[in-house]
This record gives sequence, C-alpha cells and structure tokens, in this order.
Amino acid sequence: MTRDLHHTATGVLLPWPDLDRHHGPWPEGVDVHMWDGTTPGTEPTDDALARVGLWVMPYAVPDAVNLLPKLPNLRAVQSLSAGVEKLAPLIPAGVTLHNGRGLHDASTAEHALGLILAAQRDLAQWVADQGAGRWEPHFTRSLADARVTIVGYGSIGAALERRLLACEADVVRVARRARPEEGVHAVADLPALLPETDIVVLVLPENPHTVGMFGAEELAALPDGALVVNVGRGRTLDTGALLAETRAGRLRAALDVTDPEPLPAGHPLRHAPGVLLTPHVAGGSAAFRPRAERLIVEQVRRFAAGEPLHHLFPRD
Amino acid sequence: MTRDLHHTATGVLLPWPDLDRHHGPWPEGVDVHMWDGTTPGTEPTDDALARVGLWVMPYAVPDAVNLLPKLPNLRAVQSLSAGVEKLAPLIPAGVTLHNGRGLHDASTAEHALGLILAAQRDLAQWVADQGAGRWEPHFTRSLADARVTIVGYGSIGAALERRLLACEADVVRVARRARPEEGVHAVADLPALLPETDIVVLVLPENPHTVGMFGAEELAALPDGALVVNVGRGRTLDTGALLAETRAGRLRAALDVTDPEPLPAGHPLRHAPGVLLTPHVAGGSAAFRPRAERLIVEQVRRFAAGEPLHHLFPRD
Repeated sequence: MTRDLHHTATGVLLPWPDLDRHHGPWPEGVDVHMWDGTTPGTEPTDDALARVGLWVMPYAVPDAVNLLPKLPNLRAVQSLSAGVEKLAPLIPAGVTLHNGRGLHDASTAEHALGLILAAQRDLAQWVADQGAGRWEPHFTRSLADARVTIVGYGSIGAALERRLLACEADVVRVARRARPEEGVHAVADLPALLPETDIVVLVLPENPHTVGMFGAEELAALPDGALVVNVGRGRTLDTGALLAETRAGRLRAALDVTDPEPLPAGHPLRHAPGVLLTPHVAGGSAAFRPRAERLIVEQVRRFAAGEPLHHLFPRD
Repeated sequence: MTRDLHHTATGVLLPWPDLDRHHGPWPEGVDVHMWDGTTPGTEPTDDALARVGLWVMPYAVPDAVNLLPKLPNLRAVQSLSAGVEKLAPLIPAGVTLHNGRGLHDASTAEHALGLILAAQRDLAQWVADQGAGRWEPHFTRSLADARVTIVGYGSIGAALERRLLACEADVVRVARRARPEEGVHAVADLPALLPETDIVVLVLPENPHTVGMFGAEELAALPDGALVVNVGRGRTLDTGALLAETRAGRLRAALDVTDPEPLPAGHPLRHAPGVLLTPHVAGGSAAFRPRAERLIVEQVRRFAAGEPLHHLFPRD
C-alpha cells in the first residue's frame, strides 16, 4: 500500500489549544489539531487522528500514550521530556521518537543557581530572622571567586556554567568520560578535583553507573565548608553519608532531589544543619513553555518541509 | 623645603597585616606598613607614620580617621567604600581622595540576583515546607524571559545586568538622566517602562533627588505580580505605598535595605505577604576582600611608579 503523504499523514497533533495565538500561520499543507491529553470531549475525530503524522505529546500526562493505537499513520513522536527511556519501548517500530532535550535547561540551571546563591548568602537564615524580628547582619560567603565543579556536564551543565561565569565563579567540567577537546574531566579525576572544589553540583541521570556515585569517599574529599548541590537525581548522592557530614557541620547541601523522594515529613535531612531542600521543582518554571513552543514550531516546519526533525532519540 | 620623596613620603600604610602573604614583592622603593585600625599596639611608630605618602584606610572603621594628624606627608588616601561623601571634608587640602568604586559590585549584584531568584522560584515557601514536613511541588515563575528594569544604572547595575543576561532575562537600563549612547533611559521615562516590567531593581544612592522617588504612582504603574527589589538605599522606596500593594497581594518585594533601618522587630514589612527581607548585607560577602586586595596592589604599584591613582574623588 502506498501512502499518499499529503492526504493521509500530514496531520499534526499538538498539546496546547492556545498555541495558535502565539505564532504566525502554520506551514502550507499541514493540518493542525490540538489535544491537551486531559480535557474531556476535546479529542480529535478518529478520521483526523488517522491522518496524524507528527504527534507532540502532552507534557507530564502519562495516560496520553493510550492514544497511540488511534494513530495508524504516525511517523514521528515528539516528547517534551528530556528523559524518554520509559516511553521509547511504547512507540511503534518505524515511528521516530524525539525528546525534549534542552527545554528544561534554563529552568533547571536557574534553580541550581538560586540554590547556590541562597546557600552562599545565607538566605534561609535571613528568612528566619525576618519572621523572628531580628536584624543581625553578618558577612557571608560569596559565589564570586568560588570554584564550582559540575558533575554530569551536559546541556544543563553548560547552561549553569554560563550563569556561574557571569557571577565571576570558576567552573570545572566533569562527565563520565573525559572530553579533553571540551575541557571536560572524567569522573575518575574527581579525587584530584574535589579537594579544590568549593561547590559541587550533581546533574547526573539515574542509571547503573550513577546510583550512589557520590558517596562517603567523594564527600570526604571535599574541603571543610564546601557546598553539595543536587539537581539531577536523588539516588546519585548517598543520603546517609551526606547526613554524617552535615550533622558534623563539615559540609553544607542544597538539594532539589532526594533519596527517598518524596522526602517523608520526619526525615532527618529536613532538619540537618546547613541543608536547604526544594521538592524537585528545578525544571518546573515558566521558562519551560516558551522554549517548548519554539521547538514545536520548528519541528512542525521541518515536518512540513520534509526535513529531519531535531533531537532524534536512538532506538533499535 | 624640598621633600625627598624616596625617603620621606614613600611609605604606604595598608589595612590588612596578612596582605603580604597574598601577593608578590611590593615595588622597589616603597616602605610598607600595616595597620588594621583596631588591634591595640599594632600602630606603626610616629616616625614611620610621618613617612606615609599613601594610606589605604581600614574598611568600616570610622575612628580610623583620627590617625590623620599623625600623617604630615600624606599625599593620597584610598577608601575601600564606594561612598566617601562624609569622609571627604576630613581629608586635608592637597591630599587626593580615592574611593572604592567597584569593590562591592560583584557582592551586591550577586545578592540582588539571589533575591530575585529566591522570589521568582518561591524559595521562602520551600524553606517553610522543609521544616514543616511538606513535599508539595508546584510550578513557579522564572527569571528567564522576565523583563528586569534596573533603576540607577551604574557599575553595580552593569554587574547585575551581566548576571541577568546570562539568566536569559531582558534588561532595561534607567538612570537619572538618559544616556542614549549607552541605551540608558531617563527616570522620566518610567511611566512608559514600568507597565512592561516584571522585575524592577532599585540601585539608587540616597540624595535629595532619590528619597521617596519610587512611590505609590510608580508602584501602581507595575503590572500585577511584579517584583520590587531594593539593594540601594531604603529611603528611595516608599514603605507605606509598598505595604499597601503587597498587602493587597498585587506586588511582591525583595528588600536588602528598608526604611526605617534597622527594621524594628514588630514592623509590618516583616510579615507582609510576598515580601522577602535581608538586613543590608548585599555588599558584605567574601567577594569584597580579593577585589579590594587587587585594587590595593595596583594603587601601590601606581604610587611607586608616580602614576595617577585610580578612582579619584573630585573635591574643591
């Protein structure tokens, strides 16, 4: 059977009904439908779904995958998540999968920077003093001149680095494997790097190589007063080992992700001295939507022009 | 009387006894003494003081000026403060005065950035949730894509701007007078600029032009939800007018300086919704000392070489 692409699979299904308002006209020859994945009665007709060739999935709506059987002419799926490991096996053979690489970089890097500044400039102390009626200024640490080691240097790390350099910090790049041409050190170099580090930022995905990667030995290699930041995945950092260091007052921490997660109400991390916690919100800010919209518009343009879409996720 | 400069006035008096450790040898022909302005019994001999030609005053030690009568051959005074209006009349005629312009820029800009990020990313809420045992993530505002208007655009404003641009924010520059060649708008343009502003940052000195400058009218011109930041002087912002807007939940604020200051224990700003306070600590961080040391080393070099010193403060 020969598909007539211009009539059977040039449909595009997008997740935000108000996307039209934000952009100029869609490309010629593309038939745009909207479905947010949650609002009842808004699903396009089966006939329209049958003509969908590109589907941009609703963000953070796990049930949305149940639509797949109604999309027989699908050629490409765009996820707005950076991590699509769990989604990939559900996508039919012959359909390309594209991830949301980069969409959360600005939000996550900005939150990491906020955690670092809050820790260096004693913001939690000032918040407590504000309510308690105190006005007791003291000198604080700074981010300027601090040496920040980014462990898991990728697109989020690069976005964080740009912010840190503007703040007059020094940045050291670390990834699983050294990439000398980019000035990236290997994880194996950490024993030499950590003693010179004021602030270490973990931006690691969770996989068999990274779980528990930053443990008692790595923490012990940091100098007194160093700050440990985690905006990657909670299980990459050994909670017990960190607690031992923070309870001793030797290290500080600012964590957006924890192990376990969610962190129970009575967990000792919540009251450990020098520990600042946020509930896995680094990626969840207003910075996401405009970046996602720009990617969607570009992917639709490429789809219409017959060009390869960005961010192809490799599959078997 | 002809002064033999190499023997009578080539002395340099510096404020930190450990300065020697941080730098290479001092220039030839310069006789360096140290005095921190506070430690008893460490004052140089009268004979040594009589040979001092350059005095770098101890930072934030008001009584230090009492040393002036013991410095008959003084040619230049370096203050480490940016504001030397009160010091200037105390310096003898014929002695040049040099201020600490720029030394506090990194620290102040960094603190302003920390306040902005804390406010945009709901850090005070997360600090409260941490202690209260809650794990309730929600989407937040971002700094990325926000339009930030800096009122009082000078060297601190420029340092803040570099940080904001790295955070993917838009920056609008405002000063008392327009400087079109630098893209700086005049304060008179604020009525047109404020309705498009997400975050306004006041970096104003206190003088007759600026006291109460940002009042009910300016606040009313800001859109709902806008953030008002003050890292300049407390009296440039009308506290009562700000309280009316924050109590109504219409505007938010993050203030390092207040009116009155110190802010009394029972002051309503402390419990106003959406208001974050720090006790005038923007300039007081570890970022100050290395910048001050670099300036001192350069000024001593210039003094020894007979070159004009940096940051001459104009006097009659």
